[in-house]
Amino acid sequence: MSSLSPDDVDARIAAVALMAQERAIDAVLVTPGPDLRYLIGYDAVPLERLTCLVIRSDGQAHLVVPALESLAAAASPGSHLPRSAWGETDDPFLLTADIVGSCSRIAVNNQMWAEKSLRLAAVMPGVEQVLAGPLIDELRMRKSAVEVLALTRAGAAIDRVHQRVPEFLREGRTEREVGADIADAILAEGHVTVDFVIVASGPNAASPHHEVSDRVMMSGDAVVVDIGGSMPDGYRSDCTRTYHLGEPTEEFRQRYAVLQAAQAKAVEIVSPGITCEQVDAAARDILAAEGMGDLFIHRTGHGIGMETHEEPYIVAGNSRTLEPGMAFSVEPGFYAEGLHGARIEDIVVVTESGARALNTTTHDLVVIR
Amino acid sequence: MSSLSPDDVDARIAAVALMAQERAIDAVLVTPGPDLRYLIGYDAVPLERLTCLVIRSDGQAHLVVPALESLAAAASPGSHLPRSAWGETDDPFLLTADIVGSCSRIAVNNQMWAEKSLRLAAVMPGVEQVLAGPLIDELRMRKSAVEVLALTRAGAAIDRVHQRVPEFLREGRTEREVGADIADAILAEGHVTVDFVIVASGPNAASPHHEVSDRVMMSGDAVVVDIGGSMPDGYRSDCTRTYHLGEPTEEFRQRYAVLQAAQAKAVEIVSPGITCEQVDAAARDILAAEGMGDLFIHRTGHGIGMETHEEPYIVAGNSRTLEPGMAFSVEPGFYAEGLHGARIEDIVVVTESGARALNTTTHDLVVIR
Repeated sequence: MSSLSPDDVDARIAAVALMAQERAIDAVLVTPGPDLRYLIGYDAVPLERLTCLVIRSDGQAHLVVPALESLAAAASPGSHLPRSAWGETDDPFLLTADIVGSCSRIAVNNQMWAEKSLRLAAVMPGVEQVLAGPLIDELRMRKSAVEVLALTRAGAAIDRVHQRVPEFLREGRTEREVGADIADAILAEGHVTVDFVIVASGPNAASPHHEVSDRVMMSGDAVVVDIGGSMPDGYRSDCTRTYHLGEPTEEFRQRYAVLQAAQAKAVEIVSPGITCEQVDAAARDILAAEGMGDLFIHRTGHGIGMETHEEPYIVAGNSRTLEPGMAFSVEPGFYAEGLHGARIEDIVVVTESGARALNTTTHDLVVIR
Repeated sequence: MSSLSPDDVDARIAAVALMAQERAIDAVLVTPGPDLRYLIGYDAVPLERLTCLVIRSDGQAHLVVPALESLAAAASPGSHLPRSAWGETDDPFLLTADIVGSCSRIAVNNQMWAEKSLRLAAVMPGVEQVLAGPLIDELRMRKSAVEVLALTRAGAAIDRVHQRVPEFLREGRTEREVGADIADAILAEGHVTVDFVIVASGPNAASPHHEVSDRVMMSGDAVVVDIGGSMPDGYRSDCTRTYHLGEPTEEFRQRYAVLQAAQAKAVEIVSPGITCEQVDAAARDILAAEGMGDLFIHRTGHGIGMETHEEPYIVAGNSRTLEPGMAFSVEPGFYAEGLHGARIEDIVVVTESGARALNTTTHDLVVIR
């Protein structure tokens, strides 16, 4: 399902062609993945057979597809583009090189498989390959009004799942059992795929990317629940809340209060003109001031759209300036190995004057008694 | 979940190192994907942060991981390998180049993203990159006894789903509704993911890669059901059967009988010493002899293991000789645009003296009255 119109496709292709021209790139080549879906609404799975969109700097676009996939490509919003279907014994790399024509530099999508990029290099000797990310990300990281609406819907869907988490989280259940209930709820609340389910309880919560395990949860556990999925239009959700089974210790309560203040402060300063690293520092400084700097072991956030992780990254060293339409997570945490952990994550969208959070369930520690 | 032992990991790494040496490749670099899972049992998701296994031709192996993923990597069967964790503001490409050391040629896994391979190229100027597929596939395409058992279990699981398909297929239901029931059954019968569900009815069956649609099925439809999933150990299933709602026409019956003979013949000739293209020709010749050559528009099959499509490909032009342990699909079909289509697919494993089919439900047309 794609909400793209043929006009949207043409506008996105024209923008890529223009950026290519400015950078002396003769053609941009895009194989299946989020870039292809973003540009022409074609949600093809990356496979061994070559599917490749060619956008030349003169604005001409052409889709190379295996004959087997031709009907599927024809059903996408980019169906008006010229298309060449290749048969099972043809060489699609030569065909693609022919469509690109004479050139000295091409850009390839960041997720193009090496088996494609190296074969393209072999049939285009002497042609320099660069990444297309710096071009395509310029478009993808600035969400249109339609895309902001899509992310808002995704955020509301995952919020509905978090509202149900207290039903699932019970002493004596395993992380895996709770994770299975959450996965079902992610689908029931409107997503078409479950992208990740983290249920990290007790000491497991000290590992930011722990998924689920057979650990039986018990009273006294903090439980980090970080979950997300994809909506039918391809836009993603991602939201973390921390729950607690039974009464937390005084130390945990104090640390959680600092975390909550740090997360709120980072969201509060988001505004056009602020840099990514300033947002990271806003959260990090508050944690550090309370002696928790060493417990916050990852960046503050990542962009989100048709991928869960995309530009802009909210990390020290990223001096990129925020602009309206940028969407990303703000998710500081603290991680004390062997003991406990916590994280609070919202997706926010930069507005003309500040930011709007797309996740709105309570940020307070949810104590389950 | 991985059934690999640390000894298996060491043996696979040693085999890759030896092949690298023979080909004057100084190091093999493997990022997340099926190759990494095969070699060291580490099932990491490909993401923006670099995870990379380095296997040097001298047999030394080293895993580069983001600090965030270090605990997950430590829980894998390759946990005994030296490991370097990098922090959020480190440069993992420089770190990797340092581990590779002085070299003139490296191999990269076929599915390495261009954003990784081009950044590796940037920090290793003048170093030639080639594909690692030709090395790693030599191992992956010859299944061990443990792997054959894993594929046998996957085959049995998808057979149980096909046995339930006649319950789901009813006049008046849409392809999408039936597909949802099948997806539930794929999980219920032991898979952990649903990899694909094709329910192609009536004229939709003429498109080999049609998935599902809102078409309401009716009496007189042939329905191609091509389904597969992944088991907890990562091994895949893939099986196609053709069903018919109500009585088929005489033309369809005759064509189906030819297809059934073609599929059986191709399975029958599978044996060590036979080439991939001979298997393809065995099916194709029978269809062609009955005037159906133009209706069989794809290759006869593909290897299967930790990916649904992998070496060896059963296609014209592939002169590779079959060996015991190779596993692949045999799936001829016929496709009459606007009218109907059919396909029969089994996974077979080459034995010492012939082949064993891992899918054993009836190959007859299943007529649902």
